[in-house]
Amino acid sequence: MDSVIIVVSDTCASDPSKDATGPALQNVLQTNNNIVYVADDKKAIQSAVRHNAAKYALVVTAGGTGFSPRDTTPEAVYELIDRPAPGIVTAMLVESLKITPLAALARPVAGTIGHSLVITVPGSPKGAVENIQAVLPVLTHAIKLVSGESSRDLHSSA
Amino acid sequence: MDSVIIVVSDTCASDPSKDATGPALQNVLQTNNNIVYVADDKKAIQSAVRHNAAKYALVVTAGGTGFSPRDTTPEAVYELIDRPAPGIVTAMLVESLKITPLAALARPVAGTIGHSLVITVPGSPKGAVENIQAVLPVLTHAIKLVSGESSRDLHSSA
Amino acid sequence: MDSVIIVVSDTCASDPSKDATGPALQNVLQTNNNIVYVADDKKAIQSAVRHNAAKYALVVTAGGTGFSPRDTTPEAVYELIDRPAPGIVTAMLVESLKITPLAALARPVAGTIGHSLVITVPGSPKGAVENIQAVLPVLTHAIKLVSGESSRDLHSSA
Ligand code: NA
Repeated sequence: MDSVIIVVSDTCASDPSKDATGPALQNVLQTNNNIVYVADDKKAIQSAVRHNAAKYALVVTAGGTGFSPRDTTPEAVYELIDRPAPGIVTAMLVESLKITPLAALARPVAGTIGHSLVITVPGSPKGAVENIQAVLPVLTHAIKLVSGESSRDLHSSA
Repeated sequence: MDSVIIVVSDTCASDPSKDATGPALQNVLQTNNNIVYVADDKKAIQSAVRHNAAKYALVVTAGGTGFSPRDTTPEAVYELIDRPAPGIVTAMLVESLKITPLAALARPVAGTIGHSLVITVPGSPKGAVENIQAVLPVLTHAIKLVSGESSRDLHSSA
Repeated sequence: MDSVIIVVSDTCASDPSKDATGPALQNVLQTNNNIVYVADDKKAIQSAVRHNAAKYALVVTAGGTGFSPRDTTPEAVYELIDRPAPGIVTAMLVESLKITPLAALARPVAGTIGHSLVITVPGSPKGAVENIQAVLPVLTHAIKLVSGESSRDLHSSA
């Protein structure tokens, strides 16, 4: 998949060797694409997301989606989104709430930025993978539609 | 039901005889009311929604809710909404996700515009009907509340 | 729990003895904290929420979340929120939709205001309690995270 993973974490931005979430997401997305590291800083997150949305069909951010004072990924991403994707958000939440009530503490955002689809997932390897798995069956279709490659293939369903 | 159906589709706006979704929605809503056709154009959608929300208690739009570049119905409608209705959105998504993972590709919006309730559903007959059926048991009550006819009947539930 | 309950209701603001929802919420939250009464007035709701969010870790509003013309609690609260909490909203809706289709008529909002977590629930004792019970297992953790007391305890889950 033509995708990039942006890990949002003060710790991992200082020392990428401490990151387990990026590789876990690469594994589930079956991709060898770049992992980008940024600190929990709204401007840095926005710069990384904007830059990568111009280059990749799918941008997955991991981390900074919780309730701690430094968790601002959803706000950073939401401001950049052209068209929100509540179906993706609800699919991720419904599936992760089946696994743990702690899923209620996630604050996911998803939507399009230009011809790119952007999805935020939690920072833990387990949470990140569970959220992406909830939408994995439709990601390839979604990306084709967003890019305009196949604008009417799924007219019958969405 | 005092409702109108707005079919958002370049194809059907050019040739309404190609539309199967409007009649499918009339059937489930048990209504003989008008079906209005508009192209996938944000200004045209907004004009049709605004105009019909002033006349009908329920406005259902069908189409333009997906991920293709021309799918802008949710954005067009959201800008007009006074009070969002996340309960209706979640009910539609939860039920349609039980039927197909492709429901994650929908981007529904619902809420009030003045004394009218507005709901967006997908453009396919199947998707449109499945979404409306998810909220059909509460639509009559919702419309009465929005219109102010029966403002406290459901105080005990909502 | 360090919480306050704001009951939004014209009737109860005139005569608090008519309120059954505040005591029902105190019972489920296991708290003796204040119950504050405000009328269904957007400015009054915002003033009460802002004032109490500065003092309490958790602010639960009850009432004014439906479709009647005077139901404006979600709009009042949403304007004050720094960081929306769609996981809490979806958890409440998914659980309450399992109990009754009328849950689709709720318009819940949740999120942080500074170091406080704010959640809106319906005005009926039954609806209010069902919604809070849906997130009760994670409220203590959420409050700790929002306050900054325990910013990384739940890194592994959210
Ligand atoms: Na609006």
